[in-house]
Parts: sequence; C-alpha cells; structure tokens
Amino acid sequence: MSQAATERPGSLLVVSAHAGDFVWRAGGALALAAERGERATVVCLSFGERGESARAWREGRTLEEIKALRRAEAEQAAAALGAEVRFLDAGDYPLRESQELVDRLVRIHRELAPTAVLTHTLSDPYNGDHAAAARMALQARVLAQAAGYDAPGEPLGAPPVFLFEPHQPEQCDFRPDVLLDITPVFARKRKAMECLPAQRHLWDYYTDLAKRRGVQLRRNAGPNLGLPHDTRGEAYARVFPQVTGVLS
Amino acid sequence: MSQAATERPGSLLVVSAHAGDFVWRAGGALALAAERGERATVVCLSFGERGESARAWREGRTLEEIKALRRAEAEQAAAALGAEVRFLDAGDYPLRESQELVDRLVRIHRELAPTAVLTHTLSDPYNGDHAAAARMALQARVLAQAAGYDAPGEPLGAPPVFLFEPHQPEQCDFRPDVLLDITPVFARKRKAMECLPAQRHLWDYYTDLAKRRGVQLRRNAGPNLGLPHDTRGEAYARVFPQVTGVLS
Amino acid sequence: MSQAATERPGSLLVVSAHAGDFVWRAGGALALAAERGERATVVCLSFGERGESARAWREGRTLEEIKALRRAEAEQAAAALGAEVRFLDAGDYPLRESQELVDRLVRIHRELAPTAVLTHTLSDPYNGDHAAAARMALQARVLAQAAGYDAPGEPLGAPPVFLFEPHQPEQCDFRPDVLLDITPVFARKRKAMECLPAQRHLWDYYTDLAKRRGVQLRRNAGPNLGLPHDTRGEAYARVFPQVTGVLS
Amino acid sequence: MSQAATERPGSLLVVSAHAGDFVWRAGGALALAAERGERATVVCLSFGERGESARAWREGRTLEEIKALRRAEAEQAAAALGAEVRFLDAGDYPLRESQELVDRLVRIHRELAPTAVLTHTLSDPYNGDHAAAARMALQARVLAQAAGYDAPGEPLGAPPVFLFEPHQPEQCDFRPDVLLDITPVFARKRKAMECLPAQRHLWDYYTDLAKRRGVQLRRNAGPNLGLPHDTRGEAYARVFPQVTGVLS
Amino acid sequence: MSQAATERPGSLLVVSAHAGDFVWRAGGALALAAERGERATVVCLSFGERGESARAWREGRTLEEIKALRRAEAEQAAAALGAEVRFLDAGDYPLRESQELVDRLVRIHRELAPTAVLTHTLSDPYNGDHAAAARMALQARVLAQAAGYDAPGEPLGAPPVFLFEPHQPEQCDFRPDVLLDITPVFARKRKAMECLPAQRHLWDYYTDLAKRRGVQLRRNAGPNLGLPHDTRGEAYARVFPQVTGVLS
Amino acid sequence: MSQAATERPGSLLVVSAHAGDFVWRAGGALALAAERGERATVVCLSFGERGESARAWREGRTLEEIKALRRAEAEQAAAALGAEVRFLDAGDYPLRESQELVDRLVRIHRELAPTAVLTHTLSDPYNGDHAAAARMALQARVLAQAAGYDAPGEPLGAPPVFLFEPHQPEQCDFRPDVLLDITPVFARKRKAMECLPAQRHLWDYYTDLAKRRGVQLRRNAGPNLGLPHDTRGEAYARVFPQVTGVLS
Repeated sequence: MSQAATERPGSLLVVSAHAGDFVWRAGGALALAAERGERATVVCLSFGERGESARAWREGRTLEEIKALRRAEAEQAAAALGAEVRFLDAGDYPLRESQELVDRLVRIHRELAPTAVLTHTLSDPYNGDHAAAARMALQARVLAQAAGYDAPGEPLGAPPVFLFEPHQPEQCDFRPDVLLDITPVFARKRKAMECLPAQRHLWDYYTDLAKRRGVQLRRNAGPNLGLPHDTRGEAYARVFPQVTGVLS
Repeated sequence: MSQAATERPGSLLVVSAHAGDFVWRAGGALALAAERGERATVVCLSFGERGESARAWREGRTLEEIKALRRAEAEQAAAALGAEVRFLDAGDYPLRESQELVDRLVRIHRELAPTAVLTHTLSDPYNGDHAAAARMALQARVLAQAAGYDAPGEPLGAPPVFLFEPHQPEQCDFRPDVLLDITPVFARKRKAMECLPAQRHLWDYYTDLAKRRGVQLRRNAGPNLGLPHDTRGEAYARVFPQVTGVLS
Repeated sequence: MSQAATERPGSLLVVSAHAGDFVWRAGGALALAAERGERATVVCLSFGERGESARAWREGRTLEEIKALRRAEAEQAAAALGAEVRFLDAGDYPLRESQELVDRLVRIHRELAPTAVLTHTLSDPYNGDHAAAARMALQARVLAQAAGYDAPGEPLGAPPVFLFEPHQPEQCDFRPDVLLDITPVFARKRKAMECLPAQRHLWDYYTDLAKRRGVQLRRNAGPNLGLPHDTRGEAYARVFPQVTGVLS
Repeated sequence: MSQAATERPGSLLVVSAHAGDFVWRAGGALALAAERGERATVVCLSFGERGESARAWREGRTLEEIKALRRAEAEQAAAALGAEVRFLDAGDYPLRESQELVDRLVRIHRELAPTAVLTHTLSDPYNGDHAAAARMALQARVLAQAAGYDAPGEPLGAPPVFLFEPHQPEQCDFRPDVLLDITPVFARKRKAMECLPAQRHLWDYYTDLAKRRGVQLRRNAGPNLGLPHDTRGEAYARVFPQVTGVLS
Repeated sequence: MSQAATERPGSLLVVSAHAGDFVWRAGGALALAAERGERATVVCLSFGERGESARAWREGRTLEEIKALRRAEAEQAAAALGAEVRFLDAGDYPLRESQELVDRLVRIHRELAPTAVLTHTLSDPYNGDHAAAARMALQARVLAQAAGYDAPGEPLGAPPVFLFEPHQPEQCDFRPDVLLDITPVFARKRKAMECLPAQRHLWDYYTDLAKRRGVQLRRNAGPNLGLPHDTRGEAYARVFPQVTGVLS
Repeated sequence: MSQAATERPGSLLVVSAHAGDFVWRAGGALALAAERGERATVVCLSFGERGESARAWREGRTLEEIKALRRAEAEQAAAALGAEVRFLDAGDYPLRESQELVDRLVRIHRELAPTAVLTHTLSDPYNGDHAAAARMALQARVLAQAAGYDAPGEPLGAPPVFLFEPHQPEQCDFRPDVLLDITPVFARKRKAMECLPAQRHLWDYYTDLAKRRGVQLRRNAGPNLGLPHDTRGEAYARVFPQVTGVLS
C-alpha cells in the first residue's frame, strides 16, 4: 500500500465533552502527535462547569468564574501536551445534542481535515455527556464527508476513529482494540495532568492506569519489540476496521 | 516505539485445518509476506480428505489417493504464494483435538518463532474442524511461551494472532478488525486458487470477496491513502489488542 | 463495610412510563420496601392513556376520562402496595423525551434521595415509551449528582439502579441479575393487580410469572436458604455493579 | 426471606488453576471469610510449575524443586490469609481436563459444602489453564448436586459462583458484577502477596488494582455507605443471578 | 395455525432513508411481492440529495435539480420492481428525527396496513440517516397499533419487521436471520439497479452480493430444496421472533 | 422457490440429553410433526438416571431399576406424542463426549435424513450434559454431510437446527427466534408430560410456559393471523439462517 506520494501531514482531532477529559484519556496520543510534528487539536464541547467542578461549587464560585477557571487550566494542559484547544461552550450536565452543535463540528472537521479522530465511548451510564459528545463527533465526521453538505472546505476523507478509555471501562462496554505506547511522552502527560489541581485525586489514578496498560502492552507486544519495564500505555477502541498493508 | 534495534525478520505462520483453507482465506497475507522477503509457513493439520473432497469420493478414489491429490495441489498453491507448507496428517471430519497434536504445534512455534499467527475463527457451526484447529493453534502459542514447557528452542514471544475470514462470516461471529490490502499480490492469490481444480466454484467466489473487501477497505481508508479502484482485500479479526506507537 | 453509623432509612423510587407498569413489574419490590417501613414512591410519567387503554377507547371514552380512570386505578394499586404515586402527565405514545421532563425527575431525585431506583429496560422494541422513560430516569439520576446542577436540595449519592422485567424479556436484552424474593408480599401484589380491571388478562400472566421466577429463585438459592415451594419472585437487571462486603 | 433458622456457617471454596492465582485474584475474599470465622479453602489444581515459574526455570531448578517451592509459597500465602490450601498436582501448561480430576472436585464439594465458589473466567486467551479450571469447577459443582452421583456425602445445594478478575479483564470478557470491599483485610492480602517473591513485579500491580477497584467501588456505592478514601476492592462476575430479599 | 379464513392480501412496506436504498437492499423482496400480486410500497424519507449524490454536486447541479433527478430515477427503479414509491422529502445528511415525521409514517402504516415492514439496521456508523430511519419506522409501527393514537384508520396489527443488509454488515451488527431466495426476480432487480446511473459502481457490487448470499442460501437450505447453481439471495435480520406452525 | 418436485416427506429428529427433556421442551413440535404424518424420532443419549431422578434415589432404587423406569416413562411419553424413541444409554452426570457417541449420531442422521434437527442450547451453566448433547448433535450433523465420512447411507443435506428452550433461558443465552404454535396438539403434550410422574412439579410449570409463549406468539403474529386466546407456544432459537421465498 504505497502511501508515500499522497501522504499529507497528520492532523489529530480530539472531541471532548468537558474541559479535562482529553488530558486523562488522550493526553499521550496528543503529545505523541505533537512530537511527530503533527497538528494536534482538542475541541471541548463544554467546560465541565456543572458536572465536573464539585469543589469550585462547594467553594461558592459563580458559573462564570468556574468556566474561566476550567478554561485556563485546560489551556495550560493543552500547551503542556503541545496541542491547540478550542472551547464550544455548549453547556454540560446535560450536554444537549443539537444540529447546530453538530454543524460546528462539521466545519471543524472540514477545516482541520483530521487524519484521526478521538472521542468518548458511545455508552457511559455514569455520564450521559460523554456518549452525547461521541454521537455528535461521529455524526459530524460522516456529514463532513458529504459533497452536498453546506459548509466551507473540501469533503472529508474517512479518518479512523478511536474511542478513548472511560473511567469505568467495563460498564461502558469498552474493550481495548489498540494499546498505544506513550512511554516517550508520559512525562508530558503527567505534567498536563498536574495543570488540573481540582482533580488532584486523579493524577495518581491515571498514572497507575498508564502503568497498568503498559504492563498489558508489553504482554501483547510481538517478539520484535523489546519494550522497557516502565512502558506506559493508553487504551483505545476502534469504531472502524484498521486498514493496513502488513499484519502486525 | 523504536523497534529498529531489536527487529528480527518477519515469520508468518498459518495454521489451517484442511489443505485448501490457507489459499482462500490467507493467500494474500502469505504472498505479501513472501514478497517482503519474510518466511511464510503453512501448517495443514489434515488434507481435508474426508470433508472437503466430495468430488473425488464421488469419482471413487481411495482415501490414500485423495490425500496424495490434496497434498500435491496444496504444495502447488503454496509455491504460487511463495510459502512453505507442512502436513501433519491428523485426519479430518473430525479433526480430533489431542495433546499430542498440540505438542507438535508447540514445537513448530518454537522452531519458527512466528511474528504473526493466522488461523480459523473459534466458532464455526458449519465446520467443527475449523474451530478445533483454532483452539489448538491458540493453545500451542501460549504453551510455547512457557519457560517450563518441555520442547526444544527458546520460549516464544507473544506474536499477534489474526483470525481469517470464514465462509459464512456472520454465523461464525466474525467481525473484521483489519482489512489487509492485498492488491499488489492478488494475481498470485488467484493463481494459487487455480491450483485447486476440485473447488473451481470457489475461484470466483473468493475473487468476488476480495473485490468486496477491497471496496470496504477503500471506504475505511484514511484521507492519506489514495487507493486505486481495483483494490483487493482480505479481512481478519484480532484475538489480542494491537500494540502500536501511532494511531492510524 | 461498616454501614451502621451512616445509614439513612431506605427510599425506593420507581420511574414508570405508564400508570400500570409499576404494578406488574415492581409491585413486589414496592410492597417489600413499604413493609420494611421505608418510603416507596412511584413516578408515572404518563397515564398510558393512548397506548395502554385499548378497551376504554373502544368503549368511546374521551381522553380526559381515560386519564382520570387510569389515575384512580393507579392510586388504588399504589395504596394496596403501601406506596405513594405521582403523575407527571407527560403524554404517552409517544412519551416525548425533553430536558424539561428530565429536570422534573432531577428535582424528584434531589427531594427523595432514593437509596434505590427502579425503571424500565433501555431497549424495548415493543414499546418505545419504556426505553424513553429509562433513558430519562438514568440521565436524571446522574444530573442530580452534580454539584453544579441548578435544582434545590443536596447532590444525590449514587443509588443502585435496577431494571425491571419487560413483557417479552429476551427481545429486550433483559437478563436477570437479581431474583427478588417477594413471597411475603405476593398477596399484596395480587391485590394491587386486581385494582386494574381493564388489564384483567394480565393478572394470571403476572401471577404465573411470579411463580416461574420463584421456581428459578429456589434453584439459584444457596444451600443456606430453605425456601418454601410457593416462593414468588421478581427479576431485575443491574445497571451498575453491586457493592458489598460479603459474597453471597 | 427469613434465613436465620436454616443458616449454616459459611464455607468459601476457591478453585485455582495454579498455586499463585488465589492470592492475586481472591485474597481479599478469602481473608474476609476467615475474619468472619468461616471456613476458607483453596484448591490448587497445579503448582504453576511450568507456566508460571519462568525465573526458577532460568535458574536451572528441576521440576520437583519448582513444585516444592511453589507449594511452600502458596502455603505461606494461604496461612497469611487464614485459609486452608490443598494441591491436586494435576500438572499445568496444559492443565488437562479429565473426568477423574472433576471427580476429585466433586468429592471436595460434597465434603466442604461450600456456600460460595470462586474460580477463573470461562474465557482467557492468554492462559488456557484458567478456563479449563473454571469449566471443571462449574461441572463439579453441578455433579455434586445430583442425588445419583456416586460420591460420599450429601447432594450439594446450589452455591453461588463468582469469577475472579483475570489479568487482562476485557480480553477475557470479564465485566464486574460485584465490587467487594476488602479494605479491612487489605493488609493481609498484601502480606500474602509478599509470600510470592518470584512474582515481585505483581505486588504493586495488584495493589494498584485494589486501589482502582476501590475508587470504582466508592463511585458505585449507594448514598448510605460512607466509604473512606483508601477503600480497596476486588471485582467479581456472577455466573448465576443473585438471590435476595432486598434490592441494594 | 389455520390462517385461511382471516388472510388478507399481503402488503409490503419498505421505509428507506434515501432514494436509492430500497433498490440495492430490498429490490428482490419488492419484486417478489409484486409478482405474487401483493401491494409493494416504498417510502423514501429523503432523496439522498446531499449525502448520496456526490457526482451531481461535482457537476455543479443545484439542490432542486438533484432532488428532481433522484426522484425520477427512484420512480423508474420502483416501476421496474413493480412497486409504488412515495417521497416524504424530509432532508438528508442529516435526516432529522421528529415527531412530525414519525406521525406521517404512522398514517402510512394505518393506510397500508402492511403485513411486513422492511427498513435499515438500527446501527450504522457509516451513515446516521440509516439508523434514524429505522428508529422512526419502528416507532411508527408501534404507535400505529395504539387504539388511542390520533390518526385515521384502524389500529395496526403487529407486522413482522425485517432489517435489510447494510453496505458493511459486520460493522452494523448485522447478522442474517433470513436468506430470501430472489432468483426468480433477480433480472428485475438488476434492471432496477440500472435505473440509477450515478451509482454505476454499485451495480456489480450488489450483483456479486446477490450471488454470495445465493451461495450461502444453498448451503443453508434443507435437504428438500433442490436449488439451482445460479441462486440469488438477499439477507435480512428479524427484529421480532418468527411466528409459525412448522419448524423449517 | 419451487419446492414441489423435490420435496420428500418431513423427518424430525430430536437429540435429547436425558429421557425427559424432549417432552418438556419439544413435545409440541414432535406432536405437530406426527399429526402432519411425518416421521418424528427422539434420541435420548442417556436416561437421566443419575442427575434427574432424585426421588428414585431417595427411595433407594438401584441404577438399573431407575434406568428401566425412566425408559418406560419416556416410551409412554413418546407414544403419546406419536414419536419413536431410541436410547443410546451413554450415561449422564456427566454425559461424556466421545467420538464413538458422535459416530452413532452420524449414523442416525444418515439413516433418518432429518429435515429438521432439534436439540439443547450450546450453553447451560445449570447442566453440562445439555451443552454436551448439543455439541455432539451439531458435530454429527456436519459429519453426516461429508462424502468421505465412513458410515452407511447418503451424505446428508443441511437440515435446519432449532435449539429448544432451557429451564432458565436467560442464563443460557437463549433468545427465541421462532415461536411455534402448538395449540392444536397441546392436549397431547400435556398427556405426554403426565407420563412422567416423578417430575409432577414440572407439569404446571411447562403448562404455564406454553401459555406464556402463547401470549407472546399472539403479540408477534402479523395482522393476518386471527389466533385464539388460548394459543399455546414453544420457543426455539435457530443456529442457521432461515431459507425462504417469502418474508413473513
């Protein structure tokens, strides 16, 4: 499968329901893309201002203060990963699905022409916003491919979609299809996590998860890969089959 | 994931219940490996002498004649693909699972140190031999990894396993995880198919299937892949998650 | 898992699409809670006035008459079970999902602080209202947990959710995770069923089902439980894993 | 469901393929049972002498030495948990299923009259011994219930069966139905893990897993349970529905 | 199951998201019904004007021109099959679900009193319109059964529903429950396909698929059916169980 | 699909693990076949002498007495249904899978040339014999199709296979694909049940089940079927897709 002639530089797009999701779940993939010199973009549909800011509410902050705080933290985390971040400020708890919001995502797909799209699982009984974000991301990707869809830019190709790992994977029917080796960028991911002080309790939780997926990654690695003991990993599920010229 | 330093040449192992299976289902993968200069080996657990030689039985051939015929055809087909073929002559319809047969497969794994293993699906209500072959192949791969298993050679690494497409995929719970682009070697696969004159009715069936999987492959290919209209494909399911350094 | 110090009295909440559903499907659970002295509340999103009142329509009743009739019957049935019942009168066939209706459910969750929530299955090809009710109940439960959700009362804990048995369980992907022993209150459940004369044909149907689940309950009971021959049961599926200090 | 009159003391039975499995996967459940004063018994079908003793083989130990080593370690670990351990020495890699071995398990079931049985998942593509152990344990439990099965003792009741968590749960189709709070005994479980020096790399892996399941346990706990931040958990899947008199 | 007395003539209803879908996926079923003298009706919710008319957009046609073109082609194809076609012109990419559109479908169900309903799969990650059409078709069929639903005509019976085969069946969780023998009408189906010149590349694709399903149909046919070598088939999944008086 | 010329008379084959299974689970199908004048044959792999004769063991009967008793009862029940019954006396609890027993089943398939085969589900955690019987029945059916399998008679066609309903269907992954209307023969089924006095407690259980499946059958019947209120049903799952010329 000779790809050389047609290959454009990679463009990674992460569609995230709340401001922090992309750090815990896809921080490694973003940092890897950035280190390869590819474009890495995060779209946060909301700031997680209502549903994922319990401490700030308990401290008596206003809605606007909380949104500003979450925005600032997410911008720092994205910078630590080498990614750009955009905020659509569509509200959370609930994140309401609408054709207008999908249209904004279509336009972003047309603009960025992503070569891979990452988003939430389609089922999450703990958090309806996650599944809503995933449904809208998948719908936007399909609409952006239609020649007749009225939005600027060229019709999109068919970028692969990867669902990142939810907090309680088994209850979300999440089954890893891909274990991504994030060892070279794990320090950057940890640094990005530390940009989110309100969720300090998750720093170690997701560091432990990276170790756990790293152990599994080594167990599933073929004989050619001499992976180190401190391998760190992120898990993803595919929506569409992998296309390849080599079975490995 | 820097693999360069440790990489050994590839070694593809196909475990096939009957003498013809590897041609229809994995001929493209074998030819691709051979063209890359890798070792490509097929192990046929039986000749398919009882269950897949209806015409010969109707013509009044003896069991030994049929086995010789099937062996010769399979050898020609393997040669056309650039692969080596071995016959374990364990009998078919039914292919009986035994620890002795598994042990022979363990020794082959230790000898060949495959970097990828291909076999049947674990469920096939149309053909119990297929599932039996798959169970034994998977068991042998695990046993070959054990330091304490008493067989020559080094403990095996953990090569990925790909299940090839059965005749009636949906009834076998087959869902493609990987679409392999076999366009560059399809002519060789067709030539290998034509080495099996008794199953002439399958030549077009599997040519059509390669077209069908090729159409789907193009639909799932990311925007970077300018695939031609006559793309040909083979579909595979993974048993274990993919290990990678890049999401694509 | 010492629960003694923190334990509040139980509060059971049933979210029911139509006025009769809670009787057939969760009447035993409601009566058990009431007998334990716990609060037991039913929320009927609609009266089932269009979709589950065929006889009344054939008799020429008006919409308002039918709603009044169904309300009166449901109130009698709830009283027979020892439960309170509320009607949101959101319309049926179809029950329309809306953020406003979800908000009403959030407020009820905040008010009642349920220790267990019961609702319909998330899939029911025979009745779209059932799945709509379940989706809204699950969403409300999650929203009620968010500190930033603007509704009176304290953020909810995470009460377990049980899906009650649909009319044709296998087609709704219903698989019993829990068999509830309702023997001590079955007479009350039967009495509640008899408050619904328009569905007389279901009285025996659900009595037979209680017997059937009772037989299965005895078969799955561990050796310590000397259950009587006339055991009666109700089946439930869990959405979230059980949390416990003892495996039994 | 009045159980008081008929209740016998609990008897927990763990059927483990190899000598170490019960520590990592069910150590908390065993220690909890022991602390409640119940009988807790582990049956190790093999010592894991071939498949789970790589270091000893690399050090040049003989088969008998390795078996003795593994036995001693397992006995220490069981003692640390307060459990009895028995070894059937049926061989590993592969653990061969046989009617004779099932019969030994039937007799153990009849002797111990377990009130709960714990074993491996029925699917594990990384380790065929685990699934073989689970199949035999389930078969033995059913046979022990038959009045006509020729073995000493009374026919067994129908104890619930819990499948403990495999190393790579998603690939084994493991989905937690139960999160067991092992906080009160976690120190004992850690001590038992430390009785297995050859698998030192797993001590932290399974400590991290206990934290992870503990975090999830708190998230799924109903509002009545004021669980501490250092909650530790073990995850289990049920084979049969839970039988209960209260939904919680 | 004596049906003779009550049997009305058959009435087949196909609910199709776009103007072309019914040809590729259900053309054989429609032609068979027409040949049996039954009423065969297609409802196209949209013309596929935005999402399935890439060539026309590239040629610079206007939206209205494209809709007119697609309508004309679909009418010719329907005529070739012997079916009536109606267009609801609800827009595509996205096809928006609304209660108004469902209501139009309810009225069509009441008017036509279909004895079988055919529509898309409920999941299709390649095309959200397909799943939206299926959800609305299923909802309309249920609503049309309700005595209290305010629309002209008699309450509907419970016609069986068949989901036709999507373009990439495995990714849509499509598993054939029924293989329909369309050999006698395949020439008409091919002729109908040829009424859609913009999708010329699909003519052979769906001819090959008919062959493929035909081969499988012969393999699954019981011993009484002497099916010819050129058997052609269409695959369908059932939503509801088959009701019958004979197992065959 | 013109079947007239080639149609042979029907021949129904039921493969049953124990002597009583065919009555509860497939009695209606057998009686319907007999009433249509078709051959109806039951093969009991065992008498259920150990696992399903608890009362006789408690009464102190010997193994041979119990086998004779069960044989006599099964013969009476088969006669009541109009079916022939054969006993392979392979032993139960456990029913051991062997190639010899499969071979006996192959020969029976060749002899009877069944046009439909009925057997147990492939999964049953309550009873391993049931799944063992199903696996052997399915394997025998495939082997009997092979021209090269050394047994008398002509190679078998591919009769459809129907799995009958287990005692606890959801735990056995049983999902009804077919609801069979057994109303015309239900009295005969009841009479056959009454030939099994030791399992008197199941008479009403399976009468209630027939009612329950009958209610569901009416709900799923298309508008053409004017089914009476006392409809009785049996549920079956298909292993292979239905082959038909009409969607109904």
